Amino acid sequence: MPEAQQQSDASRTAPFTFTVEATDGAARVGVLTTPHGDIPTPVFMPVGTQATVKTMTPHELVDLGVHIILSNAYHLYLRPGADLIAELGGLHRFMAWDRPILTDSGGFQVFSLAHMRKVDEEGVTFRSHIDGSLHRFTPERVVHTQELLGSDIIMPLDICPEPADRAQVEEAVRITNRWAVRAREAHSRPDQALFGIVQGGIFPDLRAKAARFLVELDFPGYAIGGLSVGETKEEMYATLEATIPHLPDDRPRYLMGVGTPEDIIEAVARGVDMFDCVLPTRVARNGGLLTHEGRINIRNARFARDPNPIEPGCSCYACQHFSRAYIRHLFKAGEILGLRLATIHNLHFMLRLMERVRAAIRAGEFQDFRESFLARYRISDQEARHRNKEAYRARRRSS
Amino acid sequence: MPEAQQQSDASRTAPFTFTVEATDGAARVGVLTTPHGDIPTPVFMPVGTQATVKTMTPHELVDLGVHIILSNAYHLYLRPGADLIAELGGLHRFMAWDRPILTDSGGFQVFSLAHMRKVDEEGVTFRSHIDGSLHRFTPERVVHTQELLGSDIIMPLDICPEPADRAQVEEAVRITNRWAVRAREAHSRPDQALFGIVQGGIFPDLRAKAARFLVELDFPGYAIGGLSVGETKEEMYATLEATIPHLPDDRPRYLMGVGTPEDIIEAVARGVDMFDCVLPTRVARNGGLLTHEGRINIRNARFARDPNPIEPGCSCYACQHFSRAYIRHLFKAGEILGLRLATIHNLHFMLRLMERVRAAIRAGEFQDFRESFLARYRISDQEARHRNKEAYRARRRSS
Repeated sequence: MPEAQQQSDASRTAPFTFTVEATDGAARVGVLTTPHGDIPTPVFMPVGTQATVKTMTPHELVDLGVHIILSNAYHLYLRPGADLIAELGGLHRFMAWDRPILTDSGGFQVFSLAHMRKVDEEGVTFRSHIDGSLHRFTPERVVHTQELLGSDIIMPLDICPEPADRAQVEEAVRITNRWAVRAREAHSRPDQALFGIVQGGIFPDLRAKAARFLVELDFPGYAIGGLSVGETKEEMYATLEATIPHLPDDRPRYLMGVGTPEDIIEAVARGVDMFDCVLPTRVARNGGLLTHEGRINIRNARFARDPNPIEPGCSCYACQHFSRAYIRHLFKAGEILGLRLATIHNLHFMLRLMERVRAAIRAGEFQDFRESFLARYRISDQEARHRNKEAYRARRRSS
Repeated sequence: MPEAQQQSDASRTAPFTFTVEATDGAARVGVLTTPHGDIPTPVFMPVGTQATVKTMTPHELVDLGVHIILSNAYHLYLRPGADLIAELGGLHRFMAWDRPILTDSGGFQVFSLAHMRKVDEEGVTFRSHIDGSLHRFTPERVVHTQELLGSDIIMPLDICPEPADRAQVEEAVRITNRWAVRAREAHSRPDQALFGIVQGGIFPDLRAKAARFLVELDFPGYAIGGLSVGETKEEMYATLEATIPHLPDDRPRYLMGVGTPEDIIEAVARGVDMFDCVLPTRVARNGGLLTHEGRINIRNARFARDPNPIEPGCSCYACQHFSRAYIRHLFKAGEILGLRLATIHNLHFMLRLMERVRAAIRAGEFQDFRESFLARYRISDQEARHRNKEAYRARRRSS
């Protein structure tokens, strides 16, 4: 359909404008408009993989001040099915969330969750992690799936390689870039923005090459993929510095799968605008609670008789009403309310953090904010990062 | 402390008044006052065994119109410990619920959950179902535990026998009645009401004997225990008819562990004022949803693409925002929001049912309401009741 394609080319980015309102060094504050509302950046997107941010109602997310959530095309394609969601009015209506949604393509999930995946020039064939059934993703089908879902921002199929294996990364960049062209051709809904994804591992020249290629294609936004998959923090920050100068200032930059409070602050300092990560919600369900001193685990015996809130001074629902002792009891007793309160607290922490990041940039005080936050916040997950890296490598080896 | 005891005897029931405001046949509408607020009767008490009504925040319970919840001294004594809850300000503050709380003594749990229980004249020795540790309940210690918790209505230690085994029931009535005397002597907090518990299985003469004995002791309320443990519905209803005429009209009557919508309506028709049951919350977590046609299971494939709410016309949060298809998806995907929405719907159903029961009694139309409700509502749990009975008997045999 060359005519429809032409029309979509003309109007594709019409509902999507990105305005940088203030900068402070490389950090910037902006607004991304979408058909479902404006998104202030830098923004943290809570993850609702299966059309629900785990334990939360959509109305609780609104109360927390969530501007946009991320969902996942791989999971929704497998269950309940993108056609079913389309039949029920699209993803926004299905999950009763009328603010913006970004859907990830599922490329990362195919490479980390699915079984027996096999990549060829045209796409990837894999078995469902749910029931072992055989499926095939192509760049066109992944766009089509996300058009059925109706998310505001959609991602092309990409390949996320082992970040330090140059040969593997070169091949991933080559295929990802080819697939980006095909995704852009397949994309037809003007009320959805298709972003480009920059791969390139930890190699500055490959990142630069990938970025330049995608910028030529003129996407309304650019994601930086293939990070937070096992590389060190220093490698990640250096990779951002090698990538971002090759991206246009007038488009939002989205660092996929990141992250921890400290990683977000460091990435904002380097010019990133958008983030998503399961961390605050996933660690919450294991009793891991974010405070300005670092992460604590509420299951620890020292909280058994502690009448204080999770973090004194915190204005979240959990901290306003419940003691550490009570929340610990809920976790020890296996009660769902514990998972809910922990999730509320951690999302509140991340959302307030982003508010303070934006205010600091506007005030021209981001560097002070960054230093004072990081001086106080005890980074606790270098070990977990290492474990993740090993697990990721083991998965790749075993398949 | 005979002086303190004397004082408590004088003021014991001061904060607790029960006023019958309207009757319709044996059914009645009343108000029970407590230090934490008034309870309109007939009332359904959601169960918060471990200091949380599973999946719900206390503020959501208030929004649903919950007037009183039930919690459990056995569970809280074992975990986190009644002393810990007292240290943190009592159960109301611990769980952030400032409306009335009734705590069950734990007698039923000792007989249904604990291991190696051994009853003697003085009390019962048992092993925790959590860690196998050895514990002993006496009538005095169980009252003391509930005084530490600070619940508004407390229950004495009792023995819940196999309801059709006359020798066993006779012994249970004998010990339960003796323990009631001791509980009454031990009870010292005037801001708590200690109810009596009538045992007697399905034997009218034993029920009458137990009731007459307890009424002599002048409790501020009377519970009917030992039902809904495997007897038929007909046996349960007949037992209510044999018991209630021996209880005073000016005290609330509480049918323990009941129940289903149809059992509640039948018990109200026979003069019961208070009910508790895990059914609406427990079946919710298995996908069982209450509607006026009967119970449906949302996991059923026929709901996969159903855009309707759980029950059309229902005003609960789940029905106002989500389709059956979405809630089914949440259950199939193992998402906690599914458990939450199902629980909200079922509690809303029970609370609205009780509102309509009260309105029908006030209007003198309870018999019409009863007939029309039961004509439409498909009773679905005779089979489950049978399974429960078998499971209960198996537990008793194996210990």
